[in-house]
Amino acid sequence: MKKNHAIATIGGGTGHFVLLSGLKKYDVAITAIVSMADDGGSTGVLRDELGVLPPGDVRQCLVALSEDSDMLRDLFSYRFENGNLTGHTFGNLFLSALEKINGNFVDGVKEASKILRVRGVVLPVTEGQMHLVIALKDGTHVKGERALDMDERIRNIGVGSIFLEEKVRAYEPALEAIENGDTIVIGPGDLYGSILPNFLIKEVSEAVKKSSAEVVYVANLTNKKGQTDGFGIGEYVAAIEQYIGEGRINVVVANTEMPDKNAISLYEKQEGLDTIISCTSSTAVGNKRIVCEPLLSHKKVHISDSDKIKKERSFIRHDSSLLARVIMEQIES
Amino acid sequence: MKKNHAIATIGGGTGHFVLLSGLKKYDVAITAIVSMADDGGSTGVLRDELGVLPPGDVRQCLVALSEDSDMLRDLFSYRFENGNLTGHTFGNLFLSALEKINGNFVDGVKEASKILRVRGVVLPVTEGQMHLVIALKDGTHVKGERALDMDERIRNIGVGSIFLEEKVRAYEPALEAIENGDTIVIGPGDLYGSILPNFLIKEVSEAVKKSSAEVVYVANLTNKKGQTDGFGIGEYVAAIEQYIGEGRINVVVANTEMPDKNAISLYEKQEGLDTIISCTSSTAVGNKRIVCEPLLSHKKVHISDSDKIKKERSFIRHDSSLLARVIMEQIES
Repeated sequence: MKKNHAIATIGGGTGHFVLLSGLKKYDVAITAIVSMADDGGSTGVLRDELGVLPPGDVRQCLVALSEDSDMLRDLFSYRFENGNLTGHTFGNLFLSALEKINGNFVDGVKEASKILRVRGVVLPVTEGQMHLVIALKDGTHVKGERALDMDERIRNIGVGSIFLEEKVRAYEPALEAIENGDTIVIGPGDLYGSILPNFLIKEVSEAVKKSSAEVVYVANLTNKKGQTDGFGIGEYVAAIEQYIGEGRINVVVANTEMPDKNAISLYEKQEGLDTIISCTSSTAVGNKRIVCEPLLSHKKVHISDSDKIKKERSFIRHDSSLLARVIMEQIES
Repeated sequence: MKKNHAIATIGGGTGHFVLLSGLKKYDVAITAIVSMADDGGSTGVLRDELGVLPPGDVRQCLVALSEDSDMLRDLFSYRFENGNLTGHTFGNLFLSALEKINGNFVDGVKEASKILRVRGVVLPVTEGQMHLVIALKDGTHVKGERALDMDERIRNIGVGSIFLEEKVRAYEPALEAIENGDTIVIGPGDLYGSILPNFLIKEVSEAVKKSSAEVVYVANLTNKKGQTDGFGIGEYVAAIEQYIGEGRINVVVANTEMPDKNAISLYEKQEGLDTIISCTSSTAVGNKRIVCEPLLSHKKVHISDSDKIKKERSFIRHDSSLLARVIMEQIES
């Protein structure tokens, strides 16, 4: 591996957080590229009320890459539980205030990165306002990324495709990080909610095509009802390569382990779990290099009153250290 | 002056901010002691909705003593202007979140002090909930410190005296700072809103009595309608010494300069200005040492949209450098 090996990651949500938490322990130059389509929860309220760019996914990346004290990280993830502030994450308010003071999102993120002593760079995929439209299989449209988790029609009818309400321009430094990267890591993350929105910006897809970087795709652990029902790894790859070009993904990293029954039944109830995605010795996708490894986290997640995020979010997760190690082995080999 | 000369300051509001901003440039050990009676604005909402201790005055002291970047200081003073967050100061949300995460206010303030790289220590005068009651001159009572600026009856009838709705215990480290201090600086600050609430806690008044520290009182620049109408310096001193013991104040620092007419007329309209307090060569209060100096700030305060605090607050202010220098001269002499 060359010195200053540059990794650009494209993802969103908890998956991106886990990936970055692991990768930051290695001596590599990380640029995390974040979709700006998020419009749910605290993030959605701040977009609506303050007119800021969505802070949520950026916040998670900053916390993941922060070298700072646990306290500052806890603070960033702290969610208010009373009064008018209910549901707001402190870190979201932090980023929104910095955006307002600095006059733009990117400079706000830079200041936050300094305060949190972030290892690497976090970039929005665009400085424009991304608004996702979901075309259902019956031809009707649903607006807003939050609908993916909130709107019953998603589960009942199913997602056909997604597009952006209005075209936005890619953020130039994000394109540069993709084009000049040595490795591009895509995923893990919700296909329609976190991964594909980035590629809806044509310049981003073109940048991946143009880049000489090796592209690693980290397969998700589960399929979501109404979104990726019954998908195998090949179908995820095909959905992504539809944008970045057939054959562009060089390596697929996937999990071999089965989550425990309790987690599965919890997910079926709360998270719209459809099926588990697993990798076996017979898994093949075109002529890509397939890396099948046990990648599940077995950590018990502490549920506290002051951190609802842990209560609401995924318990079937990648282990950040295992995932990062497997990716680094691919880079170093 | 001995090495590590310890100064305990007792005050509140903008006056305390100005004092600490000046003192922090000297090689002294500062402990700022802050009244917890504030219940107005963002602070009041957070007290009500989150059940936290009032963050406002503590926030101002932390910012004043912070060695950190202007950005972090701007951020702390940033006031949200839209939606449900309107009027909240970012720093107040910061302290409230830290109180919630740490389980108590004092540990939250300690963490904030680390993050802001504060020179000195900021302590609440109590960990209890202070609720101020204002007895008007007609014998009726008005509740809440915010009433001092908000309730018409204050201006029309006038304040007779103040007391606490329920007794609270002093915060022990604040008492220690007073007892072990080499110098205690009282004021500048609103008599009923910022200064006296501290002394309503009997242990605090007793600690000042017991302490061998020299006590410096910094006289206010103006009198407030309904509160300190026509007060001379002697009447402020008497009001304070009623609690801490006659003769306990050793030095009085007061201003000789007249503010400009524009500022005065603005204050008459907006701030309930009654009269200007000025110090002349004939000013005398008992046998106290009187230090009369020009202490006014002549800085033009930048009014920006993103910082309403500057718009709402005092423009007749002490110059922090001049004030600190005069106090330090008393200490060094």
